Amino acid sequence: MKVLIIGGAGMIGRKLAERLAKEGTLAGKGISKLTLHDVVPGAAPAGAKMPVGIVTGDLPAAGEADKLLADRPDVIFHLAAIVSGEAEQDFDKGYRINMDGTRGLLEAARRAGHKPRLVFASSIAVFGAPFPDAIGDEFFNTPLTSYGTQKNICELLVTDYSRKGFVDGISIRLPTICVRPGKPNKAASGFFSNIIREPLAGQDAVLPVSESVMHWHASPRAAVGFMLHAAALEGERLGWRRALTMPGLAVTVGEQIAALKKVAGDKVAARIRREPDPFTETIVAGWPRKFAPKRALELGFKADQSFEEIIRIHIEDELGGGIA
Amino acid sequence: MKVLIIGGAGMIGRKLAERLAKEGTLAGKGISKLTLHDVVPGAAPAGAKMPVGIVTGDLPAAGEADKLLADRPDVIFHLAAIVSGEAEQDFDKGYRINMDGTRGLLEAARRAGHKPRLVFASSIAVFGAPFPDAIGDEFFNTPLTSYGTQKNICELLVTDYSRKGFVDGISIRLPTICVRPGKPNKAASGFFSNIIREPLAGQDAVLPVSESVMHWHASPRAAVGFMLHAAALEGERLGWRRALTMPGLAVTVGEQIAALKKVAGDKVAARIRREPDPFTETIVAGWPRKFAPKRALELGFKADQSFEEIIRIHIEDELGGGIA
Repeated sequence: MKVLIIGGAGMIGRKLAERLAKEGTLAGKGISKLTLHDVVPGAAPAGAKMPVGIVTGDLPAAGEADKLLADRPDVIFHLAAIVSGEAEQDFDKGYRINMDGTRGLLEAARRAGHKPRLVFASSIAVFGAPFPDAIGDEFFNTPLTSYGTQKNICELLVTDYSRKGFVDGISIRLPTICVRPGKPNKAASGFFSNIIREPLAGQDAVLPVSESVMHWHASPRAAVGFMLHAAALEGERLGWRRALTMPGLAVTVGEQIAALKKVAGDKVAARIRREPDPFTETIVAGWPRKFAPKRALELGFKADQSFEEIIRIHIEDELGGGIA
Repeated sequence: MKVLIIGGAGMIGRKLAERLAKEGTLAGKGISKLTLHDVVPGAAPAGAKMPVGIVTGDLPAAGEADKLLADRPDVIFHLAAIVSGEAEQDFDKGYRINMDGTRGLLEAARRAGHKPRLVFASSIAVFGAPFPDAIGDEFFNTPLTSYGTQKNICELLVTDYSRKGFVDGISIRLPTICVRPGKPNKAASGFFSNIIREPLAGQDAVLPVSESVMHWHASPRAAVGFMLHAAALEGERLGWRRALTMPGLAVTVGEQIAALKKVAGDKVAARIRREPDPFTETIVAGWPRKFAPKRALELGFKADQSFEEIIRIHIEDELGGGIA
């Protein structure tokens, strides 16, 4: 089977590509070709068991999606998006990339006519406060950002194009990814990863909120697992409710820090500096804290077991097993 | 204030225009100009208290929405849409009219820059079976038609454009309108009105489903009332949950017939012929039956009091008070 990853140069896209390249199969079938598309050139994973194509381009541009559909990929992972902060600052760019890009992809799939499995990376940003204690599978979507609105619209399109038989789509709402590798960034959610990643690398990290703040997390490895599981799910099991909240771990910042101490010791955890920032506190107060993702669990999606496991995954996958 | 009705030649649009023309005010302010836009020419209500402009055109066509926004209407009622059956049969036309048309209107309002109140006519088609007994305000949207998908997407856009300060929007989900005046049509929902309207006019009507079928109704007069109330609501009372399910009456077909007997007598009700149609039964089984629209009621939206009242409204407004 042929596999296409749109957003293949991004963090999850790269990890997904590496996993597919290594395993050589998806949903029990051999992968004959893997294509990575992004606005910047992706990298073919080392030692891939199949030919890897690297395609660079702008998804919403005319003809771009048709080009990607030309060799009729059997499974498409659509991870390309501009992030929440940028979509909020640049309204037109957000709608162009996050909404029109997806619609163009769906139209190209419709024209190609072979009904590929489409796994669309959605987000818990489709939900907006106030929330119940744990957000159930039938709670309504009231996004409070343009990014969340765009993801919600794409979920609706993916379902309608599936119902009409143009694609075989499924939207999966990813938790916040933690520990996010790389440099600290200015995303309001960055501290959830910063307070783990930086101390493990021997650096100080700033905690701008109180330890009682709870949030919904999944490791990059769990997120890749969701993608693979979604690609293999039988469409009949989903019916026409094709947007699923992924399982995750609801942990407080205090629990994150306790897990860091347990895994890496007090000396490492002492590198977290508490610098409360009312602005960040206010933003975070509007975010989902906890879900009851019954349906995804019944369908076999698997979250990380504990926040300690999330930290160990980061140490294994990003630090070669070592701690600074 | 200037008022624009898009879809001004449709059934609700005409009734809304007549009411505004007669009252001369909206939200406590005098109406200086009323504009009716539609794909077919609307009719200026007789004896209107203000100048009435008739504009004919295709809303999603380039420049059309800008033309409508040029004189900066203070309140826009957006009722234009192709109906459920047509949107299901003609996928491209449905998205063009029902989604791109609304997006173009929102973009034109953004360019105009005066933040008009926008009342968007949405639909209970944003919901899809299976349902709880009564659908609450926080139940999720899983439309099972392209029409419902398009309405849902427009609700999301109206909220996001409002949050960004481009319009001051509110989406109201109308119940099935009953008694719908005019000729019997082929809509699967047509029988709900046919079994009342036709017997009252001395004609036979076919009932294709069992008397136990329950559905959610509002009279055309109640629907116009929702529009006027929505136009006058303070945006602050809505927050960013700007899509509201309107109140209605949950009645069974048996209760509809009992009300008809009470209002018009057994002879009239005897004009209903029972011809069960499994195809229609199946379609109707997927429709919402009953809501618990707590929020709309708290915000002051008012449903009809009884199905007998719905029938009397039809007799008053459409039959000049008489029964055949």
